[in-house]
Amino acid sequence: MEWKTAITLNKGNEIYLRGYNLLELVGKISFTEAIYLTLKGEFPSEKEVKMLDAIFTSIVDHGIAVPSVMALRNVISGGNKLHVGVAAGVLTFGDYHGGALEDAMRLLQEWANKSDNLRETAKELVEKAIKEKMLLAGFGHRYYKDFDPRAKRLIDLAKEIGFFGKHSEFALYLEEEIYKIKGKKLVLNVDGAIAGITSDMGFDWRVGKGFFIIGRIPGLVAHAFEELTMEKPFRRLDEDKEVNYIGEPPRELPEYIKNRK
Amino acid sequence: MEWKTAITLNKGNEIYLRGYNLLELVGKISFTEAIYLTLKGEFPSEKEVKMLDAIFTSIVDHGIAVPSVMALRNVISGGNKLHVGVAAGVLTFGDYHGGALEDAMRLLQEWANKSDNLRETAKELVEKAIKEKMLLAGFGHRYYKDFDPRAKRLIDLAKEIGFFGKHSEFALYLEEEIYKIKGKKLVLNVDGAIAGITSDMGFDWRVGKGFFIIGRIPGLVAHAFEELTMEKPFRRLDEDKEVNYIGEPPRELPEYIKNRK
Amino acid sequence: MEWKTAITLNKGNEIYLRGYNLLELVGKISFTEAIYLTLKGEFPSEKEVKMLDAIFTSIVDHGIAVPSVMALRNVISGGNKLHVGVAAGVLTFGDYHGGALEDAMRLLQEWANKSDNLRETAKELVEKAIKEKMLLAGFGHRYYKDFDPRAKRLIDLAKEIGFFGKHSEFALYLEEEIYKIKGKKLVLNVDGAIAGITSDMGFDWRVGKGFFIIGRIPGLVAHAFEELTMEKPFRRLDEDKEVNYIGEPPRELPEYIKNRK
Amino acid sequence: MEWKTAITLNKGNEIYLRGYNLLELVGKISFTEAIYLTLKGEFPSEKEVKMLDAIFTSIVDHGIAVPSVMALRNVISGGNKLHVGVAAGVLTFGDYHGGALEDAMRLLQEWANKSDNLRETAKELVEKAIKEKMLLAGFGHRYYKDFDPRAKRLIDLAKEIGFFGKHSEFALYLEEEIYKIKGKKLVLNVDGAIAGITSDMGFDWRVGKGFFIIGRIPGLVAHAFEELTMEKPFRRLDEDKEVNYIGEPPRELPEYIKNRK
Repeated sequence: MEWKTAITLNKGNEIYLRGYNLLELVGKISFTEAIYLTLKGEFPSEKEVKMLDAIFTSIVDHGIAVPSVMALRNVISGGNKLHVGVAAGVLTFGDYHGGALEDAMRLLQEWANKSDNLRETAKELVEKAIKEKMLLAGFGHRYYKDFDPRAKRLIDLAKEIGFFGKHSEFALYLEEEIYKIKGKKLVLNVDGAIAGITSDMGFDWRVGKGFFIIGRIPGLVAHAFEELTMEKPFRRLDEDKEVNYIGEPPRELPEYIKNRK
Repeated sequence: MEWKTAITLNKGNEIYLRGYNLLELVGKISFTEAIYLTLKGEFPSEKEVKMLDAIFTSIVDHGIAVPSVMALRNVISGGNKLHVGVAAGVLTFGDYHGGALEDAMRLLQEWANKSDNLRETAKELVEKAIKEKMLLAGFGHRYYKDFDPRAKRLIDLAKEIGFFGKHSEFALYLEEEIYKIKGKKLVLNVDGAIAGITSDMGFDWRVGKGFFIIGRIPGLVAHAFEELTMEKPFRRLDEDKEVNYIGEPPRELPEYIKNRK
Repeated sequence: MEWKTAITLNKGNEIYLRGYNLLELVGKISFTEAIYLTLKGEFPSEKEVKMLDAIFTSIVDHGIAVPSVMALRNVISGGNKLHVGVAAGVLTFGDYHGGALEDAMRLLQEWANKSDNLRETAKELVEKAIKEKMLLAGFGHRYYKDFDPRAKRLIDLAKEIGFFGKHSEFALYLEEEIYKIKGKKLVLNVDGAIAGITSDMGFDWRVGKGFFIIGRIPGLVAHAFEELTMEKPFRRLDEDKEVNYIGEPPRELPEYIKNRK
Repeated sequence: MEWKTAITLNKGNEIYLRGYNLLELVGKISFTEAIYLTLKGEFPSEKEVKMLDAIFTSIVDHGIAVPSVMALRNVISGGNKLHVGVAAGVLTFGDYHGGALEDAMRLLQEWANKSDNLRETAKELVEKAIKEKMLLAGFGHRYYKDFDPRAKRLIDLAKEIGFFGKHSEFALYLEEEIYKIKGKKLVLNVDGAIAGITSDMGFDWRVGKGFFIIGRIPGLVAHAFEELTMEKPFRRLDEDKEVNYIGEPPRELPEYIKNRK
């Protein structure tokens, strides 16, 4: 079987990351620069570093109440090591847990490049979405009805440091057009904002979930460490208070089975 | 890299499982026979099939309240497919979730073969365990203080069908010696009983967790199917009622960070 | 959060599986019956047991060369326990590894119930598939161009034991119509045959991957045991012979990074 | 069940990470600072940031040939999404894949605090290790017999930026004592160096694997992206060239099975 890669070359004893001697990079670049280099193959500009730092910080942990942390803590509670718990956390990042970021990147990348008239394209997309009952990933929020402060913060930052490009602009047009056409505001949410900015950085939407994973990993590690060090093993729901059994009530075995030898 | 195996041979178009043409086996053997053949390389006797059927049935599902099912359901709740959820369930089977079976097999296999005088060896082991504060896997139960009915059922069955050998016998001596020496009963539990019986079948303790996995997989699949078809995605703890935040209360950013550009 | 289930009730000390006292089932039913009961909520007939035994046997292991076993062995090679390796194997069962079974079940269940004229519906589906370049899951095989012997064996068995129903019949019509319309034979493969039979048993297509997992688990356990007991840890590709580096050749650090303090 | 945490507080709409409003942190701190804050609960000094950046960079990717990347690529090859592959990569980080870092942290933390005479304690530990055939995690390297350049680079950096403390010092004494007592050099390797430095930063050894996971995640994401975008699904070993079947040769079914109906 062939194993082909363009990421890292091991030659004798030396490790070359995207062509650069890894040892020479140590002490010279930040982790964020190393991440960008690993994913894109080139060094980021200072602006890109600042932008990525903001993005990763915004998603580094959102608390214990989400499915990934529940899964992680239960896996550790069964008697597993830290890395197994963290893996279960990453596993949980399916379509509904970080998935909006990926979907929004896809949407913006497929549509923002269709024509030079972004506003017109936005209008077209919103009309199509309404007609086909298609969900627009990156828009709408459970609480925020006027604007999402995390999205605003990231977009403001992108503008401030000169990193506001076609995809983010298109995302804002979409927000406007949704309001105009539906008469109801669906705010650009934090997933949508990150999607716009990372798309403007030239990242492929298929690596979108990767941003979420990289940014959230420290949170998962911290939760795994807490579970390992603060809790007793084998968490168990209280059958009486927390479980709702809706199945067949206790019944007799059929005679033909009861009579089996 | 070399990939060495003694399980299955693919030759042209034919698949040979442990030397037998897989196609010829189809329709001739039960799944339990196929499992035994896969693990041991030979066909089981009727007795062994009956014993394995009983063992697998006894562990096929124990309800929603355990960590493996919690992990599984949260993973699916994040927007994942059935197999990803089931994998998370299997992942949860660490040292405290099915681990006692493996540990008990190891214990019985290491000690039951030390001498012909099983009772004497049992005494020696119990004394050593007390002295070294070593846990005897397979003994003790949260509720059952007199006997564990599931263990008794399996041991009775093993005796009835003529499958009661040295390891199970040794396990019963252990139970007796614990009572004599500690003056307190620690019942042979279901893990200990399965450990005795599978050891008498000649299974290596290192495949012990495998019995638990094989037996419990149908339960995991059933829970994954329920979660996929009966529940909405993204389960979330109620922050007010279910989460106990014990960390630092809200505080101001240090000035040097607040003032950063 | 509410945890709702219809599978197992824990009441005091007793476990009820689909309403039946688990302890009473032990020693009375086969593992295959326990699997069916867990998944469907009722006992299977003898015919159904025979059919399921054949299906599970047909997929119990297909050798070391597949992605699930590669993943499993590498995970164990990193220094993990048996259950972690098996979980990685299950994880690998994505869209291309056992996925055809699920897709074929879905296809047959969506189409076989459209009208009483199965042949007509089959014709309609094949025409649609050709027109829309839709793949028909369950048809076609790398080697077998005339018929797939595993599929034939299972279908013959289904007919023999009186378990040949609408979905399997529809699958055979599809095979015929593909030949008629495309002028080229795409054989009903083993996934398609299992899909037909399990659909005739009344299983929902969304549990389809579950059959694959249950049937293949013993193979995964056996491979994990081999890796643990026969191999040294930390498998590593031979960089010179097995890796093809296609990336940037070694290059100098840019001056501005080299000069950083 | 109680869910207790000190990491993040969700209050109304606000997210507080270790007491700080997450939104206020966005744009003000680097990802490395966010990681440290998440794990330790306080902001790092500039020195600690520089040190962590160097550590994470040194492990960000080591190429395609390791078990974690093999597992990851096979899992994706079975038809899975990016996050499932990355999870399989993390899963592979068992005792032999990043485990030395954790073990070395534990060793240094258990021994460096025993007395003020570090050299004497080092001597004592080395003698004990030789006597008890105990492996000293963090020492020894396949190629490097004189010194490990990555370890040297990190230790030099720690000295340079004033981050060289008791644990790193103890690690260097260990290296010396091994040479004196065994007469053979076992170099302080990169795991040992990172262990010394992170211990000097006050990180608990039980979070040690977490450093490895956080640092290597970008590499895993990059490999997952490559596999998804550059390769066809379902990798398969070449049965003739890559598989060595060492099992039972093809054989006939026993008569009693062949004759079953």
